[in-house]
Amino acid sequence: MDWFFQVKTVEEALKTLFSHWSPPPPQVELVHLTECRTRVLGADVRSNEDIPPHCRSTVDGYAVLAKDTFGASESLPAILQVVEDIPMGSLPRRKLTAGLASKIPTGGILPDGADACVMIEHTESLPDGTVLIMKPVSPGENVIQKGEDVSAGSLLLPRGSRLRPPDVGALAALGVCQVPVAKKPTVAVVSTGDEIVPPEASPGPGQIRDINSYSIAASVESAGGDPLILGIAHDTYDALRSMVERGLEAADMVIVSGGSSVGVRDHAVRVFSDLGPPGVFVHGVAVRPGKPVIMGASGNKLLFGLPGHPVSALTAFSLFVRPSIDAMLGALDPSNLAASAAIAGAETVIEPTVTARLTRNVSSAPGRQDHIRVRLIQDKDGFWAEPILGKSGLITTMVRAQGEIVVPRNSEGLQKGTTVQVRLYST
Amino acid sequence: MDWFFQVKTVEEALKTLFSHWSPPPPQVELVHLTECRTRVLGADVRSNEDIPPHCRSTVDGYAVLAKDTFGASESLPAILQVVEDIPMGSLPRRKLTAGLASKIPTGGILPDGADACVMIEHTESLPDGTVLIMKPVSPGENVIQKGEDVSAGSLLLPRGSRLRPPDVGALAALGVCQVPVAKKPTVAVVSTGDEIVPPEASPGPGQIRDINSYSIAASVESAGGDPLILGIAHDTYDALRSMVERGLEAADMVIVSGGSSVGVRDHAVRVFSDLGPPGVFVHGVAVRPGKPVIMGASGNKLLFGLPGHPVSALTAFSLFVRPSIDAMLGALDPSNLAASAAIAGAETVIEPTVTARLTRNVSSAPGRQDHIRVRLIQDKDGFWAEPILGKSGLITTMVRAQGEIVVPRNSEGLQKGTTVQVRLYST
Repeated sequence: MDWFFQVKTVEEALKTLFSHWSPPPPQVELVHLTECRTRVLGADVRSNEDIPPHCRSTVDGYAVLAKDTFGASESLPAILQVVEDIPMGSLPRRKLTAGLASKIPTGGILPDGADACVMIEHTESLPDGTVLIMKPVSPGENVIQKGEDVSAGSLLLPRGSRLRPPDVGALAALGVCQVPVAKKPTVAVVSTGDEIVPPEASPGPGQIRDINSYSIAASVESAGGDPLILGIAHDTYDALRSMVERGLEAADMVIVSGGSSVGVRDHAVRVFSDLGPPGVFVHGVAVRPGKPVIMGASGNKLLFGLPGHPVSALTAFSLFVRPSIDAMLGALDPSNLAASAAIAGAETVIEPTVTARLTRNVSSAPGRQDHIRVRLIQDKDGFWAEPILGKSGLITTMVRAQGEIVVPRNSEGLQKGTTVQVRLYST
Repeated sequence: MDWFFQVKTVEEALKTLFSHWSPPPPQVELVHLTECRTRVLGADVRSNEDIPPHCRSTVDGYAVLAKDTFGASESLPAILQVVEDIPMGSLPRRKLTAGLASKIPTGGILPDGADACVMIEHTESLPDGTVLIMKPVSPGENVIQKGEDVSAGSLLLPRGSRLRPPDVGALAALGVCQVPVAKKPTVAVVSTGDEIVPPEASPGPGQIRDINSYSIAASVESAGGDPLILGIAHDTYDALRSMVERGLEAADMVIVSGGSSVGVRDHAVRVFSDLGPPGVFVHGVAVRPGKPVIMGASGNKLLFGLPGHPVSALTAFSLFVRPSIDAMLGALDPSNLAASAAIAGAETVIEPTVTARLTRNVSSAPGRQDHIRVRLIQDKDGFWAEPILGKSGLITTMVRAQGEIVVPRNSEGLQKGTTVQVRLYST
């Protein structure tokens, strides 16, 4: 298994991950329409009915037989007999035959026999109950057909869709009040390191408060998982192993973030290996920050070892943990991932970006994918991306960065003024 | 007040809104660190302490007095006496003076007297307890100063910040376990129209299910508000008025979305006017879709009348309601809004976008800001934006669109192949 412990490219690491691990099929639960936003659909949603259920007018005007209007013009209007004023929200009472028309509002139901509507602007109503049609319409004109929006039996929202406000509206339109969604995977989060204390504590000399449990738990939530913060493990094999075992009992995935010591990383590799099969399958990725990433699994439960540096941990999270959670939710097909990852470093979904120009040169070592955190500055010409560099003032860096740019593995850097796509950090 | 009832541009409408209404200052509540993601900070968060609390090394190597290394080289190394091996997470026991060095890990605390660190790669440890330094360091090199990341008293996160995972981590770093956040404004949501039935119902002829209550409530939630669905008001002045009054009692803002009839809109204008001052101040905006927007207020509670068409209602929501909720949360300064709205049609915040090229020509009437819904298609050259046009198949349109492009008021349209910024719909 020695070859596993070579540093991999981001794409290789993703391929290895998804070749050693298949997400268990998501469990489905029902939630009310008012609770489903941001959840991922657990089953295809099809319409049981035609929408609209009747042919409807898209204009205020007159329902007609199109052939009655052929050749009509201002100088030679067609004259039709008006037989009904169809109220909004009612079935028409009168069927149309040649020579007849019915007044109809926008959204009104077309009477039987009618096949088009004439806009009121192209008509003139006469006191004798007739209407002059000044402009011809073709069959189907100004009409939305029965089932044209959604036809009965058709797929409206496929399994795996992450529900946005318009989707919630569409579910309401179909009468889907109990929405089948993928159960959120539970993700156990462990911090390690003898120097780490809980945020409630006052750190003693050389101690620092636990950042990663909270930033990673928030990231899990943002990705659609349910975080379970287990606490801080001491920097020994036994302490880490018992914490990871607790995580495996209570959760569907375990994330360990390492302290700054090399020991922690070694413990994580041993613990993950011992809790296999399949054990550890990735150990180190050619990405900065985030290199010391460990990936493994115990059965079908993924085990991640993320760097202790908070910024690195979040970069590794977005590259590897987020797509894994997406896959568990059914929101990502791992076979698509492998294909697209080869193009652009794990761009598997449409990522919110902002186009900006670099305020300064950025250098990068070839052979490594660099993620550079940036702050966005807007002027009248658009956005500028200002790299946040310098010594790793990690807390300030975290809160100041609005997103990041990716310098690909084969690049030596980017020049000042280059147009870049800034991936925005999500909330 | 007749001039109020002229159709306004988007920028004029926003200016009018924020000149007739000032958001009440947000109430602040405390939530636990694990509950604060996506919430908006209700107070500035400052650090009570220096981070790091001590000078620390950024490398594995030796803490030294920089002046002891001046002139050192491979051929003429400086020789220093090693007095301590500083363990990670402990205060050094020995102070350094000229000629002395201490071994130090990355993150280790600098001993008193030291002002720089030499990377281990540039040293050679000798068996007699001395170390050879092959390369000079300048004062401060490879050291992160006490308070360099965050200095005691400095502002880390300003009031109004919407908290993302890295911000949650930063709060943990400062020991802020109870986070002061702006209370979510309660937003009452009313649908109107005699043809509208609840989603649980089986629509009769000409009836349709209530879409807007649910898509708007989900949008309120997405914007950071707390939606309160009041139900469906009949299409009479009295029914609408009593519903809006209920909304004013229970909520901080009321949103009415109109049915398709003109009557509903007239009722909303009268109800909003009668519940003033200030009453109605915007009636109609030159935007498609979304034109029949009504804005008013009862005291400092905003009243919105949105179009009945679900897609139009969501466009109007994102243009006017979302910034109002942002302002109530303290996440948006209305004076910035007015300034930037003049540039780009209400681009007040960094909006997640994707750069794409148009798959076809898009026409637009000058004098009106057009929002065109698009679907994104990715090929090897990047993204294409495919406009979703045609008859208003509203449900399909809603679920198929991944975002929209904005055709400015002074444009007659955009050509196929034009590079556009697609604003992504948020979840």
